[in-house]
Amino acid sequence: MKKNILVLGGNGFIGRHLVEALALQESRIRVLTKSLNNQVPPVKGVDYRYADFADSMKVAEALVDIDVVVHLISTTVPATANLDPSADIKTNLLPTINLLQQMRELKIPRLIFISSGGTVYGNAKVCPIPESHKTAPLSSYGIIKATIENYITMFSLQYGLKSLVLRVSNPYGPRQGHIGIQGVIPTIFQRILSGEEIKIWGDGSAVRDYLYIEDLINFLTQGIDNDLEGLYNVGSGNGTSLKDVLSIIENISNLTAKVKYLPPRGFDVKNVVLDISKARKALDWSPKITLREGCQKYWNWATE
Amino acid sequence: MKKNILVLGGNGFIGRHLVEALALQESRIRVLTKSLNNQVPPVKGVDYRYADFADSMKVAEALVDIDVVVHLISTTVPATANLDPSADIKTNLLPTINLLQQMRELKIPRLIFISSGGTVYGNAKVCPIPESHKTAPLSSYGIIKATIENYITMFSLQYGLKSLVLRVSNPYGPRQGHIGIQGVIPTIFQRILSGEEIKIWGDGSAVRDYLYIEDLINFLTQGIDNDLEGLYNVGSGNGTSLKDVLSIIENISNLTAKVKYLPPRGFDVKNVVLDISKARKALDWSPKITLREGCQKYWNWATE
Repeated sequence: MKKNILVLGGNGFIGRHLVEALALQESRIRVLTKSLNNQVPPVKGVDYRYADFADSMKVAEALVDIDVVVHLISTTVPATANLDPSADIKTNLLPTINLLQQMRELKIPRLIFISSGGTVYGNAKVCPIPESHKTAPLSSYGIIKATIENYITMFSLQYGLKSLVLRVSNPYGPRQGHIGIQGVIPTIFQRILSGEEIKIWGDGSAVRDYLYIEDLINFLTQGIDNDLEGLYNVGSGNGTSLKDVLSIIENISNLTAKVKYLPPRGFDVKNVVLDISKARKALDWSPKITLREGCQKYWNWATE
Repeated sequence: MKKNILVLGGNGFIGRHLVEALALQESRIRVLTKSLNNQVPPVKGVDYRYADFADSMKVAEALVDIDVVVHLISTTVPATANLDPSADIKTNLLPTINLLQQMRELKIPRLIFISSGGTVYGNAKVCPIPESHKTAPLSSYGIIKATIENYITMFSLQYGLKSLVLRVSNPYGPRQGHIGIQGVIPTIFQRILSGEEIKIWGDGSAVRDYLYIEDLINFLTQGIDNDLEGLYNVGSGNGTSLKDVLSIIENISNLTAKVKYLPPRGFDVKNVVLDISKARKALDWSPKITLREGCQKYWNWATE
């Protein structure tokens, strides 16, 4: 069945890749986005609506006749959300509650929400971390993601909302923001290219689970196709230290990074590797692109 | 050492009992409250400030020269918070973030927060529930409590806030609101007295952990005296079904309840009994008043 899909944040890093993938299928796609994407032109055939997520009337208009909402909007990033938690609450949490209420009113059955596998668990007791592990976020970014997850559960229980929540690890890939706030890999690549200093909080031993964007989009499109519901970790399932990421990037670029090590930040989680066995079982899916391959693809794109 | 204590919500059910207990000690007490308590006159020697919790200037003024803040304000109750989650966020969560930021600015070291042992765990996998169990709240009331807990942890990690968080079960006792929204026991007592129908969602088998107010206040005052920090379940440690509560109340009052059973609500948790071993070990404390004794005390007060 052809689905009417609304992608909230369809011009962001994940959103744009998703819209391109969906446009190749038989979906009717609408995008709500704050602004034009300044890197690439709009995707053909997609109904673009330009509005702030906090503009509830525009959100309501965008919801008309929609079957599935994919909520990818985050107005903050992990590194900066702590500076102003109130803004995080006002611009992310409240508009999401409004979205849930409007979906209920308009009887829109299905929501897909991108949560944060890298922050909601905090310093987990086991590694890789399964979905059943408790949430204990240390940063405002993670707290808001966990709070939205809880409200989605509440709306599911009370009003029958069908939801798919993906706790995504660290996605990376072409066109990801590289201004030092979104994504370690683009930041390092861009700084090494420009000869700028790379700041690392801690000693570089912090382990993360890096997922190439195509692997994430593949899970998302399959999840939409199959009306998948529930809570899933979506990552590579493998952990890599920041030092090892640096080596891979130095190796691919044939350049040497200028690294400045800074004291660790209290809200940074030490190690995150996601247990993705539930995601593997739910769909015909597994991560295909190794970190080295993904970094090579990023490099090819960045230097083409 | 004499402490300067600010009780936010000092005219509420828990707050008034706490202020009375603290006033017997050598503390200097300030209260921030929305309005006069219409049941009892102000406690002598206490510095009352009348303002809305959302009035950040008044909150800042009330914080001057304070050593310990006891945050008891909740503008919503479990039964109604779900109707308007946005209001819950705006009137409880955002002012609490403001409080945390002001405490940081004013270098006020210590916060005591009353969370909700009855709602933050959701439908727990073990019973009695230890503090280490994951939070999975099903109602807006529980979601906001869990979110505030997370922000308190974040402020502790980032700015060294010292905090004591009490996950209190179902406290009950004299002067508790009895308008059908706060507290099962007062509601049943008042309805049985007036011959009104008592509405029960579900079949009456739902188990709760009822804690007499004196036992809670005893933990709070000891916690303040001892500069206790951390996260503690505070309950009786015993579970009682709603049906058994009804029998106790019928027995004490020598009246028969008119009960109307309604379909269960999705956001109601089935069973909650708190594991209070951590609280028992931390202080010279254990719950002293049995449910029957506490109900008798409530009855004596209500009919005196």
